[in-house]
Amino acid sequence: MPDAMPVPRLFSFIGGSSGSWSVAGVTVLAGEPLVTPERVEVVAGNVTARRDGDAWVLRGITSNERYVIRNEKTQLVAVQQGLGRPDSTCAVMIPMRKNDAWWALTQDERRAIFEDQSHHVQIGLKYLPPIARRLHHCRDLSEREPFDFITWFEFAPEHESRFDDLLTELRRTDEWKFVDREVEVRLRR
Amino acid sequence: MPDAMPVPRLFSFIGGSSGSWSVAGVTVLAGEPLVTPERVEVVAGNVTARRDGDAWVLRGITSNERYVIRNEKTQLVAVQQGLGRPDSTCAVMIPMRKNDAWWALTQDERRAIFEDQSHHVQIGLKYLPPIARRLHHCRDLSEREPFDFITWFEFAPEHESRFDDLLTELRRTDEWKFVDREVEVRLRR
Repeated sequence: MPDAMPVPRLFSFIGGSSGSWSVAGVTVLAGEPLVTPERVEVVAGNVTARRDGDAWVLRGITSNERYVIRNEKTQLVAVQQGLGRPDSTCAVMIPMRKNDAWWALTQDERRAIFEDQSHHVQIGLKYLPPIARRLHHCRDLSEREPFDFITWFEFAPEHESRFDDLLTELRRTDEWKFVDREVEVRLRR
Repeated sequence: MPDAMPVPRLFSFIGGSSGSWSVAGVTVLAGEPLVTPERVEVVAGNVTARRDGDAWVLRGITSNERYVIRNEKTQLVAVQQGLGRPDSTCAVMIPMRKNDAWWALTQDERRAIFEDQSHHVQIGLKYLPPIARRLHHCRDLSEREPFDFITWFEFAPEHESRFDDLLTELRRTDEWKFVDREVEVRLRR
C-alpha cells in the first residue's frame, strides 16, 4: 500500500447550510441547474454521505495537466499563486461538462481547439497572478459524475471585474462550443 | 442526475478463490509484489468490499485516449478487436505505475517519450488484430490507488508468443524507464 498520508488531491465540494463560503449567487450558463445552497464547504477527501441540510456534494481530483506544454508551464509557474491568500475573500466555483463530441476527439484535435484556436492558456495568463485557480477532474471518478471538471478560482474583491473579463473571453472561444453544462457559483468568505 | 444506466467504464478486478479466469502465473517486473490468487474476476462497477478469500481488488476506468492522435486512431480503429472473442481463452492483466518524474512532465514531453522515442502506438499496431486490449486508468480515482493503469489483454493461445514479443518490445522503450511498479498476471479461461 502507498503512504498512509498522501498529498490531498481529491476534494469534496459541499453545498448546504454550513461552510466557510457564503453563496452570493448561482448562474446556470448551460444545461441542468444546480440547487442554490446558502453556503459551500470544500474538504479534502471523498465525502459520500450528505448531512442534513446539504443540497449537493460534488467531487473532483487534481491531476497532471492534459494540454499544457513546457513553455506554457514555465510561464504559468512563474506567475501563478496558490489558493488561500488572506485577501482572496472572493471565490467562484465552476462545475462544467463537455459533450460527447469533445471526448471523441483525439489528443491532437483537443489540443488544437484548446490552445491553437481558443488560446486557453494565453487568455488565462493575462489574468495571473491576481486570479488563483485550481482545476479538479471529475469525469473519471465514476460513470455517474454530473460534471467533468470543477474549477475553483480565488481573488480579492477589487479583481472581480477582471475575473468577469476572463470568463467572457473564455466563453467566446471555440472550446466553449463543446460545453454542455456549466454552472457558476459565486462565493464570499 | 445523468442516465440511470451509463455505459460501464469503471471495472473492478478481483483476485481471489473464485472467478472466470484461473491464474497461470504472476510475475513482478518492478516494485512491490501482488499476492498470487487462484482466480480473477472482472466485474463492472466499483467493488469496495472484499469477500472471504479475496486477495485484492483493483479498480480502473476506461477513458479518452491521452496521447493518440487522429491518424493513429484511424489505424487502430481499422484493426483493433474487442474483448470477449470466443477463441480468446488467454488473458493477461498488467497493473502498473509510473514514477513522479513521469507525472511532472508536460503533455508535449510525455507524448514525445510515448511515441516519438518509444513508438508505443506503432509497436502496438504490429500485434493487432490478434491481441485485444483495454486500458483502465486508476491514478485519478483517489490518492491511494496502488497502480496508475491496468491493461487487460486477450488473445488465442496460439498468439501467446507474439504477445510475449509485444511486451519485450514495449519494456525496452524509454517510456518504460518511468515504470516503477509492474506486475503481470497470466490468466486462462
